[in-house]
Amino acid sequence: MKRIFAFATICAVACVMLASCCGDGGKNYRIVNGTIVFNEPKPAPGQQDMLAFAADPIETVRVGFIGLGMRGADAVVRFTNIDNVEIKALCDLLPERVEKSQKKLAARNFPEADGYWGEEGWKELCQRDDIDLVYICTPWQNHVEMSVYAMEHGKHVAVEVPAAQSVEECWQLVDTSERTRKHCMMLENCVYDFFEITTLNMAQQGLFGEILHTEGAYIHNLEPFWDMYQGNWRLEFNQQHKGDVYATHGFGPDCQLLNIHRGDKLDYLVAMDTKSTVGLKTAQEKMGVDEFANGDQTSTLIRTENGKTILLQHNVYTPRPYDRMYQVVGTRGFAQKYPVSGYAFEKTQLTAEDFDHENLSSHSFVPRDIKEKLMQTYKHPIVRDIEEKAKSVGGHGGMDFIMDYRLVYCLHNGLPLDQDVYDAAEWSCIGELSAASIENGSMPVKVPDFTRGRWQKLDGLKFAE
Amino acid sequence: MKRIFAFATICAVACVMLASCCGDGGKNYRIVNGTIVFNEPKPAPGQQDMLAFAADPIETVRVGFIGLGMRGADAVVRFTNIDNVEIKALCDLLPERVEKSQKKLAARNFPEADGYWGEEGWKELCQRDDIDLVYICTPWQNHVEMSVYAMEHGKHVAVEVPAAQSVEECWQLVDTSERTRKHCMMLENCVYDFFEITTLNMAQQGLFGEILHTEGAYIHNLEPFWDMYQGNWRLEFNQQHKGDVYATHGFGPDCQLLNIHRGDKLDYLVAMDTKSTVGLKTAQEKMGVDEFANGDQTSTLIRTENGKTILLQHNVYTPRPYDRMYQVVGTRGFAQKYPVSGYAFEKTQLTAEDFDHENLSSHSFVPRDIKEKLMQTYKHPIVRDIEEKAKSVGGHGGMDFIMDYRLVYCLHNGLPLDQDVYDAAEWSCIGELSAASIENGSMPVKVPDFTRGRWQKLDGLKFAE
Repeated sequence: MKRIFAFATICAVACVMLASCCGDGGKNYRIVNGTIVFNEPKPAPGQQDMLAFAADPIETVRVGFIGLGMRGADAVVRFTNIDNVEIKALCDLLPERVEKSQKKLAARNFPEADGYWGEEGWKELCQRDDIDLVYICTPWQNHVEMSVYAMEHGKHVAVEVPAAQSVEECWQLVDTSERTRKHCMMLENCVYDFFEITTLNMAQQGLFGEILHTEGAYIHNLEPFWDMYQGNWRLEFNQQHKGDVYATHGFGPDCQLLNIHRGDKLDYLVAMDTKSTVGLKTAQEKMGVDEFANGDQTSTLIRTENGKTILLQHNVYTPRPYDRMYQVVGTRGFAQKYPVSGYAFEKTQLTAEDFDHENLSSHSFVPRDIKEKLMQTYKHPIVRDIEEKAKSVGGHGGMDFIMDYRLVYCLHNGLPLDQDVYDAAEWSCIGELSAASIENGSMPVKVPDFTRGRWQKLDGLKFAE
Repeated sequence: MKRIFAFATICAVACVMLASCCGDGGKNYRIVNGTIVFNEPKPAPGQQDMLAFAADPIETVRVGFIGLGMRGADAVVRFTNIDNVEIKALCDLLPERVEKSQKKLAARNFPEADGYWGEEGWKELCQRDDIDLVYICTPWQNHVEMSVYAMEHGKHVAVEVPAAQSVEECWQLVDTSERTRKHCMMLENCVYDFFEITTLNMAQQGLFGEILHTEGAYIHNLEPFWDMYQGNWRLEFNQQHKGDVYATHGFGPDCQLLNIHRGDKLDYLVAMDTKSTVGLKTAQEKMGVDEFANGDQTSTLIRTENGKTILLQHNVYTPRPYDRMYQVVGTRGFAQKYPVSGYAFEKTQLTAEDFDHENLSSHSFVPRDIKEKLMQTYKHPIVRDIEEKAKSVGGHGGMDFIMDYRLVYCLHNGLPLDQDVYDAAEWSCIGELSAASIENGSMPVKVPDFTRGRWQKLDGLKFAE
């Protein structure tokens, strides 16, 4: 357990492997009538889908954490605020990080967990027979190997975003989850942000009419943060990969609004990027290289089977305010979160007596007081009881806590999770799909149907209660 | 001159012709290696480009107006506020509109102009030998026929947006202008809006570093306005055409920021639309038809030769606030106009003593007082002297007046116009190009080079002074 090794080395090897199977070398897609179509593996005989899958209720959810750097360390503390949880094991490459989290447990009067570190620590954690859930917060490059291994060893998995780095990796998650009958939930927290989840509820109550177009982004100048990623794994990944490599925070809420694989499905996408200028300069300074694959700004357009569109953007390089874009364009209303949040409706849309119709106009956002009243009225049921606690525990303003709370709540009660393995695959596959489009002059790319034809089995997104 | 006829009929015929030459029938493009390439006509022998073209100075610019409906009637009044102008002739399909504009001239103590109306009135106006400039504000479908006819009869042309409705029409404008050595300026007013033109100046002074990405849109719920277009020409056009049919207000400022055909050029685009829901419902009610080509929201991504990208959107159907999107993403700064305007810069970007460096951060917009100071400091030179007058004359807050003022100023002084015929073609061609992409599953489309290879002849956009 103490054989300390360089995760960074493994990452570098993984990246080279990715490049050779998905880059200019042997491609895992073919071009059919001007459209890129990725290879789809065959499922194992008898393999069943995981749509609306619920495991048996778990009285006390026994958790093991892998990765205690930025995100994982915070997750451990959040879990001490959730009922029906036992923190069994903590693992990181570095023993000092395990120690640090142990101290945080002690400060919260929680019993010491078993500690794992070094090269094979995470495997030993997964091999235990007294853990229900493995919670993975390691660098992107390790997500799939660890998730698959955990499920193969009978554990449910929660894994940080993006869950997978290639289409082939997405299929690995789907096939392993279906075969092992274990949950594989991606830890997409932004779908629980207060504006997003309230707006989702408004959408599900029909306030926007039929939703036609949504937007999402990860626009965050990471210039002050690059040195915080151990072994420079994040800049290294971007240096080697074109495309929207971090799409899930913007895309997850979009897919929920559009009921993706719950009545609609992603059909095809096209992507386009700018040249790399700031990214390249950063890599020249920090890595001494003269090439940078990832464009400074990447835009992706996606069309669904039912004729809706989604716009995604990625920019972690240039000086501009943080922006996840989040936008909802419906036949009867509109929502926008950045740079200031607002709602607009057609005049006849809102009929409740407590709203002043004269203050609503499709040509302007509703006034702030009406917006706030709307957000109170349409607070999502799953948030209602835990909002105060979420805000006091914190984690990006509370959304991280709601995410963890919901994960444990559903496992404890034997309910389907809010996010399933198909969400993880769909939201993560954008990276390689957009790269393939860009590398082929913005050629359309067919989005894989990870449900293998069962996207109409469920009728809309419903969070279990 | 009094033979009143139905312009609407001509429009309908024009639309059918457009559909038959550009739709599913005989196409004016071919597909080369998965990219749509439009046919390019050959120029006449000896035909020269119009880049930086300046006509001889015109002491008094004698103007004839065609089309006195919504936009044209306002333009006549604005011209009474400009020096060195003589309003020679007024023309409309309907005599009562001519009469109305005559009264406005009289109210401003201007002499009566010669009046033309009916089927051939505009041709008679163009045939006069005492007019320098024909100013065209008719329905879209008549723009090119009238512009070409006016240039063929020795007149400079200013024509409302979009100047042309197809790629073939764009080439007609370019080739006629080059052959006749007459200006053909599209009346794109939004490039003169105060925020846009100030930001353009800031861009040209280097405040945003190298500009990598820009955005523009026409998002305007036209539901209250559909009945104002005579003979329903606008809804009829949209009913028959996919694509971003009204791109110029968002796209013009983008192209100016990126020095398009002045050192960079548009390379290719991809477009995607939603299904038509609100548009279809409107057409069912107003036209009794069950099909509507134009998607409720259309998005277009364009890449330039120098590796920049542009995002355009079009939505004139759903209830949402007016938005031209206008966004500038640079290596050192950022600007955004909607829903609230703001600037952001890297911390070291602004060095002038009068700015407080501590108040500037790449993670947020600069405070309002700094923004206002910046906008004062970087007011565009061409606006400085006429801003007060522009605001008092009006026209979309003054930008319409600045546009007209600049047009007359440049003609009077024998200077190149701010917008040339290549701008008119590039900004207008988006309609048919985006339609072709959408009709082919978002296939990439090569953007025609209307300069025929001379896009590096000029070094950046400069307004003549």
